[in-house]
Amino acid sequence: MKKILVIHGPNLNLLGKREPGVYGKTTLPQINSVLKALAAKLKVKLTIKQSNVEGEIVDFIQGAENKFDGILINPAAYTHTSVAIRDAIAVLDIKVVEVHLSNIYSREEFRHKSLISPVASGTILGFGAKSYTLGLAALLDLISAK
Amino acid sequence: MKKILVIHGPNLNLLGKREPGVYGKTTLPQINSVLKALAAKLKVKLTIKQSNVEGEIVDFIQGAENKFDGILINPAAYTHTSVAIRDAIAVLDIKVVEVHLSNIYSREEFRHKSLISPVASGTILGFGAKSYTLGLAALLDLISAK
Amino acid sequence: MKKILVIHGPNLNLLGKREPGVYGKTTLPQINSVLKALAAKLKVKLTIKQSNVEGEIVDFIQGAENKFDGILINPAAYTHTSVAIRDAIAVLDIKVVEVHLSNIYSREEFRHKSLISPVASGTILGFGAKSYTLGLAALLDLISAK
Amino acid sequence: MKKILVIHGPNLNLLGKREPGVYGKTTLPQINSVLKALAAKLKVKLTIKQSNVEGEIVDFIQGAENKFDGILINPAAYTHTSVAIRDAIAVLDIKVVEVHLSNIYSREEFRHKSLISPVASGTILGFGAKSYTLGLAALLDLISAK
Amino acid sequence: MKKILVIHGPNLNLLGKREPGVYGKTTLPQINSVLKALAAKLKVKLTIKQSNVEGEIVDFIQGAENKFDGILINPAAYTHTSVAIRDAIAVLDIKVVEVHLSNIYSREEFRHKSLISPVASGTILGFGAKSYTLGLAALLDLISAK
Amino acid sequence: MKKILVIHGPNLNLLGKREPGVYGKTTLPQINSVLKALAAKLKVKLTIKQSNVEGEIVDFIQGAENKFDGILINPAAYTHTSVAIRDAIAVLDIKVVEVHLSNIYSREEFRHKSLISPVASGTILGFGAKSYTLGLAALLDLISAK
Amino acid sequence: MKKILVIHGPNLNLLGKREPGVYGKTTLPQINSVLKALAAKLKVKLTIKQSNVEGEIVDFIQGAENKFDGILINPAAYTHTSVAIRDAIAVLDIKVVEVHLSNIYSREEFRHKSLISPVASGTILGFGAKSYTLGLAALLDLISAK
Amino acid sequence: MKKILVIHGPNLNLLGKREPGVYGKTTLPQINSVLKALAAKLKVKLTIKQSNVEGEIVDFIQGAENKFDGILINPAAYTHTSVAIRDAIAVLDIKVVEVHLSNIYSREEFRHKSLISPVASGTILGFGAKSYTLGLAALLDLISAK
Amino acid sequence: MKKILVIHGPNLNLLGKREPGVYGKTTLPQINSVLKALAAKLKVKLTIKQSNVEGEIVDFIQGAENKFDGILINPAAYTHTSVAIRDAIAVLDIKVVEVHLSNIYSREEFRHKSLISPVASGTILGFGAKSYTLGLAALLDLISAK
Amino acid sequence: MKKILVIHGPNLNLLGKREPGVYGKTTLPQINSVLKALAAKLKVKLTIKQSNVEGEIVDFIQGAENKFDGILINPAAYTHTSVAIRDAIAVLDIKVVEVHLSNIYSREEFRHKSLISPVASGTILGFGAKSYTLGLAALLDLISAK
Amino acid sequence: MKKILVIHGPNLNLLGKREPGVYGKTTLPQINSVLKALAAKLKVKLTIKQSNVEGEIVDFIQGAENKFDGILINPAAYTHTSVAIRDAIAVLDIKVVEVHLSNIYSREEFRHKSLISPVASGTILGFGAKSYTLGLAALLDLISAK
Amino acid sequence: MKKILVIHGPNLNLLGKREPGVYGKTTLPQINSVLKALAAKLKVKLTIKQSNVEGEIVDFIQGAENKFDGILINPAAYTHTSVAIRDAIAVLDIKVVEVHLSNIYSREEFRHKSLISPVASGTILGFGAKSYTLGLAALLDLISAK
Repeated sequence: MKKILVIHGPNLNLLGKREPGVYGKTTLPQINSVLKALAAKLKVKLTIKQSNVEGEIVDFIQGAENKFDGILINPAAYTHTSVAIRDAIAVLDIKVVEVHLSNIYSREEFRHKSLISPVASGTILGFGAKSYTLGLAALLDLISAK
Repeated sequence: MKKILVIHGPNLNLLGKREPGVYGKTTLPQINSVLKALAAKLKVKLTIKQSNVEGEIVDFIQGAENKFDGILINPAAYTHTSVAIRDAIAVLDIKVVEVHLSNIYSREEFRHKSLISPVASGTILGFGAKSYTLGLAALLDLISAK
Repeated sequence: MKKILVIHGPNLNLLGKREPGVYGKTTLPQINSVLKALAAKLKVKLTIKQSNVEGEIVDFIQGAENKFDGILINPAAYTHTSVAIRDAIAVLDIKVVEVHLSNIYSREEFRHKSLISPVASGTILGFGAKSYTLGLAALLDLISAK
Repeated sequence: MKKILVIHGPNLNLLGKREPGVYGKTTLPQINSVLKALAAKLKVKLTIKQSNVEGEIVDFIQGAENKFDGILINPAAYTHTSVAIRDAIAVLDIKVVEVHLSNIYSREEFRHKSLISPVASGTILGFGAKSYTLGLAALLDLISAK
Repeated sequence: MKKILVIHGPNLNLLGKREPGVYGKTTLPQINSVLKALAAKLKVKLTIKQSNVEGEIVDFIQGAENKFDGILINPAAYTHTSVAIRDAIAVLDIKVVEVHLSNIYSREEFRHKSLISPVASGTILGFGAKSYTLGLAALLDLISAK
Repeated sequence: MKKILVIHGPNLNLLGKREPGVYGKTTLPQINSVLKALAAKLKVKLTIKQSNVEGEIVDFIQGAENKFDGILINPAAYTHTSVAIRDAIAVLDIKVVEVHLSNIYSREEFRHKSLISPVASGTILGFGAKSYTLGLAALLDLISAK
Repeated sequence: MKKILVIHGPNLNLLGKREPGVYGKTTLPQINSVLKALAAKLKVKLTIKQSNVEGEIVDFIQGAENKFDGILINPAAYTHTSVAIRDAIAVLDIKVVEVHLSNIYSREEFRHKSLISPVASGTILGFGAKSYTLGLAALLDLISAK
Repeated sequence: MKKILVIHGPNLNLLGKREPGVYGKTTLPQINSVLKALAAKLKVKLTIKQSNVEGEIVDFIQGAENKFDGILINPAAYTHTSVAIRDAIAVLDIKVVEVHLSNIYSREEFRHKSLISPVASGTILGFGAKSYTLGLAALLDLISAK
Repeated sequence: MKKILVIHGPNLNLLGKREPGVYGKTTLPQINSVLKALAAKLKVKLTIKQSNVEGEIVDFIQGAENKFDGILINPAAYTHTSVAIRDAIAVLDIKVVEVHLSNIYSREEFRHKSLISPVASGTILGFGAKSYTLGLAALLDLISAK
Repeated sequence: MKKILVIHGPNLNLLGKREPGVYGKTTLPQINSVLKALAAKLKVKLTIKQSNVEGEIVDFIQGAENKFDGILINPAAYTHTSVAIRDAIAVLDIKVVEVHLSNIYSREEFRHKSLISPVASGTILGFGAKSYTLGLAALLDLISAK
Repeated sequence: MKKILVIHGPNLNLLGKREPGVYGKTTLPQINSVLKALAAKLKVKLTIKQSNVEGEIVDFIQGAENKFDGILINPAAYTHTSVAIRDAIAVLDIKVVEVHLSNIYSREEFRHKSLISPVASGTILGFGAKSYTLGLAALLDLISAK
Repeated sequence: MKKILVIHGPNLNLLGKREPGVYGKTTLPQINSVLKALAAKLKVKLTIKQSNVEGEIVDFIQGAENKFDGILINPAAYTHTSVAIRDAIAVLDIKVVEVHLSNIYSREEFRHKSLISPVASGTILGFGAKSYTLGLAALLDLISAK
């Protein structure tokens, strides 16, 4: 049974509340439920973490090495500023898929640059909460294909 | 039965041959077969077009308005240079999903800017030929959700 | 009797539908009717063409040399990206007036640069469909003044 | 009877003398005569002002609010540097048309940016003295269309 | 009785010692005393926190939602680098006032850009320790005005 | 009794009318009344001037040297373009506080740079008409502290 | 007998007429004659094409793969804007030599960047019509050396 | 007898007081005395003006055309921002020499660009008050050499 | 006996594993052993810390003030993004030496800027694990020289 | 008999050894032999010089004026940094052809700008050692055509 | 008797010949004669050197320290590229005046930046050969004033 | 016995005198003595050269290939401008260590870019004269480790 680590970046715990025009009304618990349901159906084991602290997310990623088969990450605000998260992903041997709820390329200028995309296996963005389920499916495909 | 238009941009007819290190070895006919199989399974009707001419792609998009329920497009080289394709998509009422085989954000600087992303409903990139099937699934989700 | 070539660039065939907040509700046939009425009144002969293909617009311009007394062009999306259209205009001996429906300088950053303005005899922008009739009048003035 | 305020920016009082290769040989009094003749024909009342002082032009614009139906302005050198004139126009309820004698986009780099265009109803440039009469006609069209 | 959360960003615990030429000689406990005295006089309840960790400051802000009527924040070094703090503030319903001891716009180039200002209700900078008391007064004004 | 010079920059005489969404509905006379009331309470003497002319504002500032104890200035549009006002402030021995009604850092790009901030004693921005009263209080604090 | 494809980009059909100060007075048929004479002498077979359409040039290049031993291309205006032509060349196994009549690096700023040079085997520029014969000779050298 | 117009730009009336570390201790009247003494010796007639208003300086320059043989100007703060003064000088037939007290290229970044230098006959900078006398001598040389 | 604090930044705990082509095969424990051996030989006391959290590194630095004679720091990813670590170092009275395993100036563009170098006493980079021992020796020299 | 000066810039004396992946394995003496053989065949007299010193290359160029009919130069590293060599070429009356072994436009960013190209008669790059023989032939063509 | 070192930079030995439209027809020997005549009149001893080699000019400057009272330098092309000449001047105790024949700020973009101006005592530019005599006079003034 | 070449770049012969606030008071002979003493202790043979001429430094480096085991270089001003020195180092097979007395990243903007660092084995900067001895030790370590 495959094991997947899901990492939600800063402020995603507020989903559903935060600028619904941009992010939709789905809350993080709702996204997690949908992900778990899909995981059950696909027979994979999910571990889900959220943190507002850049270094904790680095810790999550480092700790995944021999315990998980892949990481599904929405780095949120740290997408644009964190070289540390990028370096942590670059050193991993397991697959990492990056997801974003909104289309970061149609928002403020400073959100147009992703430090994470160049080291992720693939990126899915702009589908709202659906980005996560698409991402999970894509990640499993990548793992099987290895 | 939903109708989907798939548009392959310039040089994609050479897939499998073109820089396999970057794009993989799958050919365009193979991608189309996989897409058709998935379409059959999902009970949608696919129309597939490829062109090297920017203006023809604009024509394809304009012509899709009342004939298709959604567009799956890999604008390839025109991703970075075509305001005309962007404008054609912006005026459409149907959903458009953008896909890329490679991670355009880890290649040459001039490929880091997508003129298409800000007007697409969502973007999927970096999963190789898999980007297309993920994109087709995502597009159908968007259409059902409307 | 003077002969004028009117060239509508990409996506202008969708006018009236496309982002009416930006471009107004007038359709391209309506604009053409108004232009023809004005032409009849001013006793000039109009030929009107539209294309979504950059190279076809270059062909139209090249073909105008000995057949027309002036060109009225709305290069639309190619305003910002086409060195080829610029070069075709630069080599012409006849007058060229550039028009835009919207004020391109109050839209997205990438629309602020016109490759065509430096080689046009004059530019009229921001008056909606009226830009065309102002442009036709201005073009005829330029031709008479030669 | 409509009332229009014409504002000539800095150094335009020297027209006809100043770099005739760029601006033509027509003098400001000649332009004013032609404008007055056209105004008489169109049955509008013109008030014409010129100033070299940025703040005086702001004063002219502010004073126009309830006294005029529209403004025809050639901001000349202040086109590229005056946020104050831009702000004065932005707050007006009446229509403002911006004109330039020369094609500012084919001159020095620092003349390529217009702070005024984004707040003007429309812009006409590059037709020499003719830009003014085209502008007056366009302005009256805009006023009637309101 | 209104409740206000005061957040001091990284290195502010060293105030009075850190480059006194730039920040003055007042220590953080002294600033806190003055703030508390003012709070007592204005009959508001202050809670004061300091952290060097970006994510903890995000936690403080998220936790303030239903517990406080406003936030007074000096984001210090994170002013210029933290999209995460910006996002946390953007989602809040309560008022946030940003203060700085020094004039960040007359220091090093990388301190000239504030990611926080665009999402704060107002900003006060350059008055030394006084910026805090001015900020507290301004924040209470904003809260009363709501 | 302290004497304070209040300087309102270009277009501020139109306050209350000008883009109320951005600047609020308070008029300049209303702001002046509130300032005078506060001044009366604080026992300071106010002199209030407004000009649309950059050079006149330079004159006001130069003339303040031995006649006033401080200047409260909202340079408005000249904030972003006037090296002359900056130089006039830099040479003064008395304190200068800069205020802005709106948050200039969340508006157009060209309003993000203040030439005045680096030479002002402090800056207050984004509190609407309240910025002035906060500024007057801050200025008096600075004067007393000298 | 070696087979070479010569591709002339947009507006080159107007050579001899177009800005003779920049491009010389030689016409395209004259250049083609000289090329054919040289080809006859060198015993190679030339096929010569010209197009104003970016996508057609992509088609020419793609079609050359198994039919020609090398390509001699003057991409003209598309040199500076076409990622599609670049991608088509990058995937070819045969040699490609890029030529320009004028010295593109001493003309307008936007002509200083060649998207084609990094994927061409070599580049020859600034020798007028002579660039073509030098280019043909160089291309044959490259082919023999393979 | 030659007639020379000397124009002092904004804030120069404060010389001797303003940042003596940068500009020296000489006052403007002292500079004027030295200039007059030199003028007397060289048998030229000086007219000296100072203004803080950009447009007035434009007026001075325009008025000089047939009344003076040359202009000696220190545009001060307007050096870096005034297209209007640049245009006024460009249209003059008489010689203009630009002087600066300080070395503007070793001060703040925004003072490194002179809009005036490209239209002046020559520029002298960095010699303190001496720049004026050197400039007057140089201007007279230029006038004699005509 | 001198006391030195060694701080390893984010992801350095993975050394030896992480991109060995860039960082070499030495692990962090091995580096620490070598450092301790050298420390023993030089008779200094080492305290070694590692953290992935920016704010914890700020805490380490703040806590060093009266307890250590110098800091040897490899800020890793935070080198390029942390104003907070820079500010913490700037306020210290003790010497700080910055080391990097790889030559950051020959890697990705975003690693070419060090926010730390300007506040460090000296920097050593590119010698692999050897950078640390060179750095420790250099730090002790600086401390003795005080 | 025509006389040609060949100038090899800095480090070209190391050819064949220096990064053979970039420059090929041919040595400078081998290139010189081939050039001499070609010269003998074409009946021109070659003088060949190499220097690592920018100013010596300026001397070579200045000295060529009345002694040579043309210069064939590979400015190597000075291509990108030497205004002095550019100025020396600009003043020459004889023809200058610039050659490069590698395609400088597909190497590091700082090699993309040639200060020499705008003043050379033509440029040949990317053909390895062959660039020299193509350049010599092209130079002789230019000389004959004069 | 004061001793002055005059340094002419690269290519100035060609004066009179080199682009006379830009630099005038005066030759370097003529300039030197005029300088010597002025020196004789002012009773100073001139030593005049010219070099095309950056490092030799550094040697000249270093050697001037105790042998000359001032340096008059036209760094020509090295003005824009030589940090080494800048550093040599910065360390000198004697006065240095920089002169240019042409107005470097109205020529190519890359000539707009002077690395020398910030370390020179003063700069004179645009007066042709006259710049030298003005410079010599200015230098002597500076020396006397010391 | 290992042989090391020490190269001092331009103006370093003036050390001790040149801006002692930046570079310290140690002279170059003193640095050389310390280096020689260390070399004697470490039993290596030093050869020491200094030049102000870029091309001579290129010569030194080229000449080191088979005669020395390593190079210790302080390129001084040429650090920021010399592609030629960079190319000479890139082709060497022996180890090169770059040293700087001052912290170049905390000085003027144009000193922040090192063209040499990317091709050096390692870089040591900011330790004053100590940078050399640290550099010599580091170089010997590198040589032994080979």
